[in-house]
Amino acid sequence: MLEGVGVVGTGPLTNLLLSTLHSVGIKVVAIWGPTLEQATETARHFRIPFHTDKIEDVLLHQEVDLVWVTCPPHLHSQVASNALSIGKHVLCERPPGLKKEDAVKMVTAAQYYPSLMSVMTLGLRFLPSYLRTKKMIQDREIGDVFLCDIKMSCGSLLGDKYNWSCDENMGGGVLNTIGPHIIDIITFLTGEKIVKVRGMLKTFVKQTDCISGIRHITSDDFCTFQAELSRGATATITLNTHVPGQFRQEVLIIGSDGRLLIRDADLHGQTASMPREQLLLADIQHIPEKQKYIN
Amino acid sequence: MLEGVGVVGTGPLTNLLLSTLHSVGIKVVAIWGPTLEQATETARHFRIPFHTDKIEDVLLHQEVDLVWVTCPPHLHSQVASNALSIGKHVLCERPPGLKKEDAVKMVTAAQYYPSLMSVMTLGLRFLPSYLRTKKMIQDREIGDVFLCDIKMSCGSLLGDKYNWSCDENMGGGVLNTIGPHIIDIITFLTGEKIVKVRGMLKTFVKQTDCISGIRHITSDDFCTFQAELSRGATATITLNTHVPGQFRQEVLIIGSDGRLLIRDADLHGQTASMPREQLLLADIQHIPEKQKYIN
Repeated sequence: MLEGVGVVGTGPLTNLLLSTLHSVGIKVVAIWGPTLEQATETARHFRIPFHTDKIEDVLLHQEVDLVWVTCPPHLHSQVASNALSIGKHVLCERPPGLKKEDAVKMVTAAQYYPSLMSVMTLGLRFLPSYLRTKKMIQDREIGDVFLCDIKMSCGSLLGDKYNWSCDENMGGGVLNTIGPHIIDIITFLTGEKIVKVRGMLKTFVKQTDCISGIRHITSDDFCTFQAELSRGATATITLNTHVPGQFRQEVLIIGSDGRLLIRDADLHGQTASMPREQLLLADIQHIPEKQKYIN
Repeated sequence: MLEGVGVVGTGPLTNLLLSTLHSVGIKVVAIWGPTLEQATETARHFRIPFHTDKIEDVLLHQEVDLVWVTCPPHLHSQVASNALSIGKHVLCERPPGLKKEDAVKMVTAAQYYPSLMSVMTLGLRFLPSYLRTKKMIQDREIGDVFLCDIKMSCGSLLGDKYNWSCDENMGGGVLNTIGPHIIDIITFLTGEKIVKVRGMLKTFVKQTDCISGIRHITSDDFCTFQAELSRGATATITLNTHVPGQFRQEVLIIGSDGRLLIRDADLHGQTASMPREQLLLADIQHIPEKQKYIN
């Protein structure tokens, strides 16, 4: 049992994490924020006993057993490696645009301290629909998989200020941010690795009302690619951040004997034994919201 | 006013055409079928006074002013050119897999007889949603268009016998069959021509229960490509024939000030003046069918 968690990061995603940890009774004992003001505010809101703007203060905090890394991506590798080196477990948000040398550094640190838990969070594969899809594919309910067609659409990933998310070299962009989750679930669902890729990245919007002047946005806001998988299947992926007001994801898996479609968090499908496509799994967490559309 | 129409072709699409012509009071006076039996059956069903299995008999028929070409695609160019050369108007289904030399032959014949009407039917652009979309783009309601994202999914295009649709060289496949309509509406809606293309064709299913033995299917059953347009916009197109039981099309046009989405035959969208996405045009012909989903 973990005694205490230290969180390195603030912002909307961190707030979501803190709420979730609180709701399942996991104790957060220390928080870091990029400014003392942000750290103070988050600590006050979530009643976290210790806050700081110095990362090492969280890592070295006596009650911290596990460090949860949600800070800006360029810091991830260093924070994760340092935390492991002083004997702390690490749960790290997958940093967008992780450079190979930084990834190697993290993997090396994780292997060097095998008694410590070190997890890179690519969360999509833990959703019930993805777990069920994987099982159905493994049980050969749709035969041989030959195609994964994946589409994701949402509004702009940029905030109202210029920051790392605007810069292709700092890990910004839709491929850096969403892409790894998609690549992960392709491998997870099909059991195949991607061996060849062809595609394009586009930055259609180079300035916004908030981000203008000398600085231009260089991170991609649209991305589409095709991938060939190790046993011959094909995957097509389109990630589009020009559809404000909604976050939609559709993962369509087609096999020789049927197909499965994860739409948002629900699973639909048709196997050889079904006369038509049907809802196979509804994500109960979303049902109240869905009632709006169904009724 | 046209006195009489001669139809060169039989089959489901021709039956649909004959019903439509009948419903608007246009008189079909002659029909050709690949066998006398097929011609006889269609003629009897639609009460067409003359039927034959010789194409020239339709073209030369005295009461035929306009020849409507819906026969197998490899005959289109010849039938259309011959009909024009003896003074008949021509309305020709766009032949899948039209070869350049055959296209040139048809265009030459059409230009040589300018008093005759010669139309290649690419029908999508005549649907109300597409007309409205074009007008909204022209009126700059969504600003500068930078992306068209087009997805089409349906069941297999193949029948229960081996024929031209199974063969990539005879005009079979989803790119040959659906592609031209998509290419046409990209140009129609944006006013831009495609200048560069990158993509892939796949034949995932090479044999079916009905088409097996020595013969293999060579026509593509899945196709995805990206296109660059002449004024800098990008189009992404995915055509998928592995979703039986439905025909879905989604044309998403994204501009600097908003977006338009043609889903099936309806138009949804959000322009700068709208607080959220809304239904802009419902195709009334489909409403009864849609009630099933709405209620």
